[in-house]
Amino acid sequence: MTHPLFAQHQATLEAAVAAIHGRGYWSPHAEMPSPKAYGETAAEDGRQAFEAQLGRDFVLEQPGQRGWAAPERSPYGVELGVRYPVCAPDALVAAAQAAMEGWRGVGAEGRVGVCLEIIARLNRRSFEIAHAVMMTTGQGWMMAFQAGGAHAQDRGLEAVAYAWDEMRRIPAEAVWEKPQGKNPALKMRKHFELVGRGVALVIGCGTFPTWNTYPGLFAALATGNPVIVKPHANAILPAAITVRVAREVLAEQGLDPNLVSLAVVDKRSDTQALATHPAVKSIDFTGGNAFGQWLLEHARQAQVYAELAGVNNVVIESTDNYKAMLRNLAFTLSLYSGQMCTTTQAILVPAGGIATDQGHKGFDELAADLAAAIDKFLADPAVATAVLGAIQSEATLARIAEAGEYGRVVLASRKLAHPEFPRAEVRTPVLLACDAADEASYMEERFGPISFVVKVADGAAAVALSERIVREHGALTVGLYSTRQDVIDAMTAASWRAGVALSINLGGGVFVNQSAAFSDYHGVGMNPAANASYSDAAFVANRFRVVQRRYHVE
Amino acid sequence: MTHPLFAQHQATLEAAVAAIHGRGYWSPHAEMPSPKAYGETAAEDGRQAFEAQLGRDFVLEQPGQRGWAAPERSPYGVELGVRYPVCAPDALVAAAQAAMEGWRGVGAEGRVGVCLEIIARLNRRSFEIAHAVMMTTGQGWMMAFQAGGAHAQDRGLEAVAYAWDEMRRIPAEAVWEKPQGKNPALKMRKHFELVGRGVALVIGCGTFPTWNTYPGLFAALATGNPVIVKPHANAILPAAITVRVAREVLAEQGLDPNLVSLAVVDKRSDTQALATHPAVKSIDFTGGNAFGQWLLEHARQAQVYAELAGVNNVVIESTDNYKAMLRNLAFTLSLYSGQMCTTTQAILVPAGGIATDQGHKGFDELAADLAAAIDKFLADPAVATAVLGAIQSEATLARIAEAGEYGRVVLASRKLAHPEFPRAEVRTPVLLACDAADEASYMEERFGPISFVVKVADGAAAVALSERIVREHGALTVGLYSTRQDVIDAMTAASWRAGVALSINLGGGVFVNQSAAFSDYHGVGMNPAANASYSDAAFVANRFRVVQRRYHVE
Repeated sequence: MTHPLFAQHQATLEAAVAAIHGRGYWSPHAEMPSPKAYGETAAEDGRQAFEAQLGRDFVLEQPGQRGWAAPERSPYGVELGVRYPVCAPDALVAAAQAAMEGWRGVGAEGRVGVCLEIIARLNRRSFEIAHAVMMTTGQGWMMAFQAGGAHAQDRGLEAVAYAWDEMRRIPAEAVWEKPQGKNPALKMRKHFELVGRGVALVIGCGTFPTWNTYPGLFAALATGNPVIVKPHANAILPAAITVRVAREVLAEQGLDPNLVSLAVVDKRSDTQALATHPAVKSIDFTGGNAFGQWLLEHARQAQVYAELAGVNNVVIESTDNYKAMLRNLAFTLSLYSGQMCTTTQAILVPAGGIATDQGHKGFDELAADLAAAIDKFLADPAVATAVLGAIQSEATLARIAEAGEYGRVVLASRKLAHPEFPRAEVRTPVLLACDAADEASYMEERFGPISFVVKVADGAAAVALSERIVREHGALTVGLYSTRQDVIDAMTAASWRAGVALSINLGGGVFVNQSAAFSDYHGVGMNPAANASYSDAAFVANRFRVVQRRYHVE
Repeated sequence: MTHPLFAQHQATLEAAVAAIHGRGYWSPHAEMPSPKAYGETAAEDGRQAFEAQLGRDFVLEQPGQRGWAAPERSPYGVELGVRYPVCAPDALVAAAQAAMEGWRGVGAEGRVGVCLEIIARLNRRSFEIAHAVMMTTGQGWMMAFQAGGAHAQDRGLEAVAYAWDEMRRIPAEAVWEKPQGKNPALKMRKHFELVGRGVALVIGCGTFPTWNTYPGLFAALATGNPVIVKPHANAILPAAITVRVAREVLAEQGLDPNLVSLAVVDKRSDTQALATHPAVKSIDFTGGNAFGQWLLEHARQAQVYAELAGVNNVVIESTDNYKAMLRNLAFTLSLYSGQMCTTTQAILVPAGGIATDQGHKGFDELAADLAAAIDKFLADPAVATAVLGAIQSEATLARIAEAGEYGRVVLASRKLAHPEFPRAEVRTPVLLACDAADEASYMEERFGPISFVVKVADGAAAVALSERIVREHGALTVGLYSTRQDVIDAMTAASWRAGVALSINLGGGVFVNQSAAFSDYHGVGMNPAANASYSDAAFVANRFRVVQRRYHVE
């Protein structure tokens, strides 16, 4: 008796499992907002669905509701005014616990089928979610559609595939028959039940409310756990739509919708109460170090999967395509105004400059050329605003304003007018130069469009400094530009020791801050920037347990 | 280029992987000490090898040695006098770290091949190890041979199989080719390196120095981590032989023998220094709650896999084979004098008695019949001493002596003379009766041959009490005797909620305290008795990480 939703999505699941084993390119979700993929009316329907929510109550019918909250402020300066239910943490946890046994009873196939149906419906609402992501995070439209839609759905599906790949290898039952020499064999029947560990809490961030939420949400849900989604106060709508879709699918299947709920809080202590609730057994967190460390210190009853701050860096030792390198870096530093957990912050360059296909380039020359490349890339205001998006938080605006204090300004940030949103906070990147010794400047995360060209003694020193930065302060990505195999080998070995993903000589249409689901392991889980990867067995295997029973049979 | 040791053991590995997926009966290790399986001279060779170590220095040539220690005292009263190297913790950790990169370079196949060769050699030394286990732990000979030899080797092999099953699914490299409409595809080559997380510490217990040590040792080693084995001060020899075998195999393969080292400490602070060393990234621990909780609290830099105390229990609601039930329980309570982490401590029986195939049995009658069954089983001194073994620790002897304070004595413990070892501390089990309300008596682990027949209101109350005991105090095993399907269903559901392995109506040659590798999940990892299982993906998946690099290709 295969669950109907499992049967319906089985081909996608099998392709996804093949993809995680092969880790080449694969996605079932169209990343272009094209009518061909999404339907002729999808764009307009999505826009209307988004707009219909503005200034209204976002009804979810969750237990323990004690009020409404509308904390979001759009980086584009648009009034949102969506009011979300505020529910008592204890009521959400109790409802989640009550829903759990029914969810276990559906079995692994049923749970995976339900998860895949939720993801398929999220895909059909990609336009609506993209508007919600764009307007709450400040992402440009195309990024909001891709990273907030298809790519986030990919990451959710990838987590389900890993969960299924682990669960399917545990037999529901077995006959154990142990020979006893000339005596009759000992024979037992054993049953193996997959049991979720308990209520899961998924705490989202303000910049990628779906991409960074779906892996934990679907990993926990597929493995048998109810999930409470606690979005960032400024990026609730994408999570709220996601939760509503999940609850709809669950209810249609006769399951308790409280398996997935939204926790919008009106005081910080509510988040802490959720995180330290004895019934909460896992927490997925993306965000800053302060609360991340608080969670690791206080939420001892839960397994915490944390993605925290880091200092991503790129070593430039030499290049055989100077222009392509500069273009590639200029795009990386500009995209979403550097508000990605994967954006490069420190660019390590030998004091004596580097060899390139255009001859030797001095340290200052390289820094100036990179600044010029950024300027050139952002010269067209339409391109600039589309790529940069808007600045998500006041704190980032403040960091941009004070950036001159951290180093010598090579390229100053400019405020751009947005052609469509006059109150949008658009800023171009600031590029600073400093010495390797100025560690206080560049060796701390400066989230936003702030990066440093750091002067190091030579290539070997750059590789060593990169490794130390990763070990001590963490990083999700490092990059290397070098034409020398010995330098590439040294940087590769350093990346193994420090535990960080390495991109080598990127000059085309792939950027160090991009991570493709089903292929790139996002986060390694070995350095301070993250204690887990989104895309491996370790991300799912510890979220469920096997409970056995056994008895004699003839 | 398959590694020669991988090729040599590949058939065994493939059978082991099939076994963990099927979880029926399987083992490549003969559990009977027969000349057919082990060779005509194996028994005598093993005895001589064991005896040759007594009163001598156990040389390991480890770094940082600063002295010798000989702390073992045999429960059989035999002089051991083996002197082990005491090495500085920092030196062991530094040597382990230095060895790690070479171990990574061998690759998953090479590491698995080396692990399988170590296990194969341990198997050939089963007699020697069995003597070492027997004389240090007080186990009877047959148990020492089986649990200390073949079954421990099974558990080690099982961990390697899980590790391999996870690692093999990660491709070494992939080509990622993303279509770009009419433009040329984006194409990258990606490499995925498996990297151990860091030095592993495996802390053994005094009762099962190989069975409880091999899972962590081989799970950590196979996944790329150097391992420091820190045995219990009274059960060093089995671990020392194991470490020596591992170091021999590593050295033969041109690998750094310091990938596996033995930490015998002469002060408690050395163990703490090891456990909290920043380079130690995982700790496998079997033992008491005090030090276990200390580890969980202080060894925050490491993933801790802990098997702690619990209150295993059995519910007796009814039976259709009263005699078989009593015989089965009598054996369970007697085996190794209850010094197993899986031995039943609390037997929950309705106040009004139970229905049986021999008519109704009152509460007191059942308790008395169980006492009689134990007495009868242990009537033959040869059987008794073989099954009971000797009492491992002074603390257990003290608990037996004071057991009368915990409840009404139904069966008193007796001191038996051992025909072969006049100074052996042999004790028969003590059986107590108490009321469910006397929680202070039975709801705390009383390690050793001390168990309670606990009077509960009725069958439903027994099931509920069993669940609460497991949730609050932990358990590795629970049992049920009932002829009613509704009771079996209720107990099954309770076992899912509390997270504990359930044995139903055991009456034959399988006992609730036995856990068979490749079939039974030892520990669930959901209740206070253990935060991990020995035999699932979660036990291995978090011990290594995937570090990727990528670059453009044409």
